[in-house]
Amino acid sequence: MKPELKPIGLIHSPHREAEGTPIQPRWAAGVEGRVEVLPEFAPGLRDLAGFERIWLLFWCDRAGEARLEVVPYRDTQSHGVFATRAPSRPNPIGLSCVRLLAVEGALLRVADLDVLDGTPLLDIKPNVPDLDAFAAERVGWYAHARGSRIADDRFTKVAESKST
Amino acid sequence: MKPELKPIGLIHSPHREAEGTPIQPRWAAGVEGRVEVLPEFAPGLRDLAGFERIWLLFWCDRAGEARLEVVPYRDTQSHGVFATRAPSRPNPIGLSCVRLLAVEGALLRVADLDVLDGTPLLDIKPNVPDLDAFAAERVGWYAHARGSRIADDRFTKVAESKST
Repeated sequence: MKPELKPIGLIHSPHREAEGTPIQPRWAAGVEGRVEVLPEFAPGLRDLAGFERIWLLFWCDRAGEARLEVVPYRDTQSHGVFATRAPSRPNPIGLSCVRLLAVEGALLRVADLDVLDGTPLLDIKPNVPDLDAFAAERVGWYAHARGSRIADDRFTKVAESKST
Repeated sequence: MKPELKPIGLIHSPHREAEGTPIQPRWAAGVEGRVEVLPEFAPGLRDLAGFERIWLLFWCDRAGEARLEVVPYRDTQSHGVFATRAPSRPNPIGLSCVRLLAVEGALLRVADLDVLDGTPLLDIKPNVPDLDAFAAERVGWYAHARGSRIADDRFTKVAESKST
């Protein structure tokens, strides 16, 4: 089994670099951007406009080498990477539930966007609270997280952040 | 940019084929299974046990050719694939929020599992309701969906479902 990905579009946002970018849609309230879907995939967007929120799955192309233990933005302690949402993971697939403002042909206008500008888009799924919104009493270290809601450059590729 | 995936493990479930499998964790309540993480990635699981629910991202390896318009299990009408959760999508990445029962070394015991047995695992993320559970008044065609909560073989690879 050799899974092969092909980007289906590009995410445009005001976030040009990791440093200063909100780390979750919840903390990016009101930040608007555009999702540009490649024309060949536009027929797949039919009826998407009816949904208030959508899941974006994207490739964190500026994440550095995968790490198995990280100090996430949101905490000051180290955790296994799968217990965090840090981008430097074995398969750096990002997941964000953004607000869908409008569908204009193959262009989506979205809000609550926490994604870096130019990020390759992999998939779009409708957000359906009945299917996606679960209550949970135990949320591990998040219950006492003391870190930031804003990213810095700790997970950015060294080659990109340090060069020039 | 050439995104490359590497499976980090395997999902074991009682669902041997698409037909008869619940199509969402919400409708797979109580169905138990195991997520076998490859030993090399086990350090990434540290502190995961504190979370009641986790997101599994997986490769729908038995999904047929990508389609841009589908009649999803949940409805009787056709929709753009990105307005559905159908597996036959350009990048067939599945997303399921399952209940985490226990972490035993590199093995996770989970419940509410709607994933086919033997499905390659791509990523695990903690589910945090504050970050992931959004209310939404508009849920498009799901508001009047008349279809099934159980899958059939409509999205299974023809070669596999029809052979032997």
